[in-house]
Amino acid sequence: MARMSTPPRGRPGRPVDPEIDSRVLSAALEVYSEVGWAGFTMNAVARRGGVGKAALYRRWPTRQDLFAAAINSLRTSGPVEITGSLYRDLTQTANRLINRFLGPHGMASIRALVDAKIYPDELGEALDYVRQSTIIGGRKIVLAAVDSGELPPDVSPSLIMDALAGTLVHRILLIPDTRRAQLAANPEPLVAQVVDLVLRGVGWQGTVSTRRTESGSGEPRTASEG
Amino acid sequence: MARMSTPPRGRPGRPVDPEIDSRVLSAALEVYSEVGWAGFTMNAVARRGGVGKAALYRRWPTRQDLFAAAINSLRTSGPVEITGSLYRDLTQTANRLINRFLGPHGMASIRALVDAKIYPDELGEALDYVRQSTIIGGRKIVLAAVDSGELPPDVSPSLIMDALAGTLVHRILLIPDTRRAQLAANPEPLVAQVVDLVLRGVGWQGTVSTRRTESGSGEPRTASEG
Repeated sequence: MARMSTPPRGRPGRPVDPEIDSRVLSAALEVYSEVGWAGFTMNAVARRGGVGKAALYRRWPTRQDLFAAAINSLRTSGPVEITGSLYRDLTQTANRLINRFLGPHGMASIRALVDAKIYPDELGEALDYVRQSTIIGGRKIVLAAVDSGELPPDVSPSLIMDALAGTLVHRILLIPDTRRAQLAANPEPLVAQVVDLVLRGVGWQGTVSTRRTESGSGEPRTASEG
Repeated sequence: MARMSTPPRGRPGRPVDPEIDSRVLSAALEVYSEVGWAGFTMNAVARRGGVGKAALYRRWPTRQDLFAAAINSLRTSGPVEITGSLYRDLTQTANRLINRFLGPHGMASIRALVDAKIYPDELGEALDYVRQSTIIGGRKIVLAAVDSGELPPDVSPSLIMDALAGTLVHRILLIPDTRRAQLAANPEPLVAQVVDLVLRGVGWQGTVSTRRTESGSGEPRTASEG
């Protein structure tokens, strides 16, 4: 869908100075991580980013626009590559997720999902975009694995993605601060554990070295939402 | 540990009027769900709850105390009963979690975990209590299942609880608002899917009807929804 390839809210014109853009978006994420939607003001972001309010409003006419741009800037790495192995695809996805959640603005995206439930009229549209990207990305990975016979045809793509991302999010939210640095330095064991749990949990038929490259392409995609 | 059985922050004296107590805690959760820690003030809670600030400060001298009491009031149902079947224990746990997250203050506990990462000095202690209760409750269930042979001895209790709770949280955060009511009315299919995924994912050896209490261990403990 074309709508999915660009952020949902129109931004007036192209950004004139990418450096200011990125500084402001980073300031916006910092402010947002601290205060959430209720405290997210153009004033606070302008002050934190060291830019004038006029420059801010020129780029993002409303705080919704600024919020949407900031949240979308967290998702810079493009769609996950489908490698030919569900094991590798999920490992790649899990690594991205853990890097994002443990990154400098890791709490912003979780807070945004919470705020979207509390302020659906104001934030629903911006977050629908994030939700849809997540769901569509996961669905592609899962459907490719169903096509190649690595997964049974009745698996639920959203269940797989909820399990993968949710387990990581929950661990990061509950880990004591004293052990957070250790996880950030060495996330591989957790990623391997979680990918293994999810693959076994959904009846994965592949092996770590499975390749999907020569699988039949005429098969209808039958994965259905659970 | 005795420390785990009571909230960590001392409350001065017993509450004098339980009805005011519960009204204030509900107002506190409402305010907190909307504005998070940055906007959580005694003033806002007093106004929302329709009580004087003096009454509020008498019960909870600081906003940390009020926050801790409010968050802990979400966990009213006591420890999960160990029924003799891991399948039933996890189903019971999942039902409680989904009821809490879909309940009137469902976003408060997720927001609190996010805020504890942003304001560790102010909220770390209150949230450690919540984290520890979750971890200890899950560990008991898992260790009982290891004892009975339902689970291999090398499973990670925290991985199981992260997967169970995290999958549910992620689904609830990502579900479109249009489908939320449907999930609230009929959570059983999702609970069954998630419990099944987690059990298969960790190499569960039991069956749905497995009981762990075959040899006369006093009174047989039966399942009951908490």
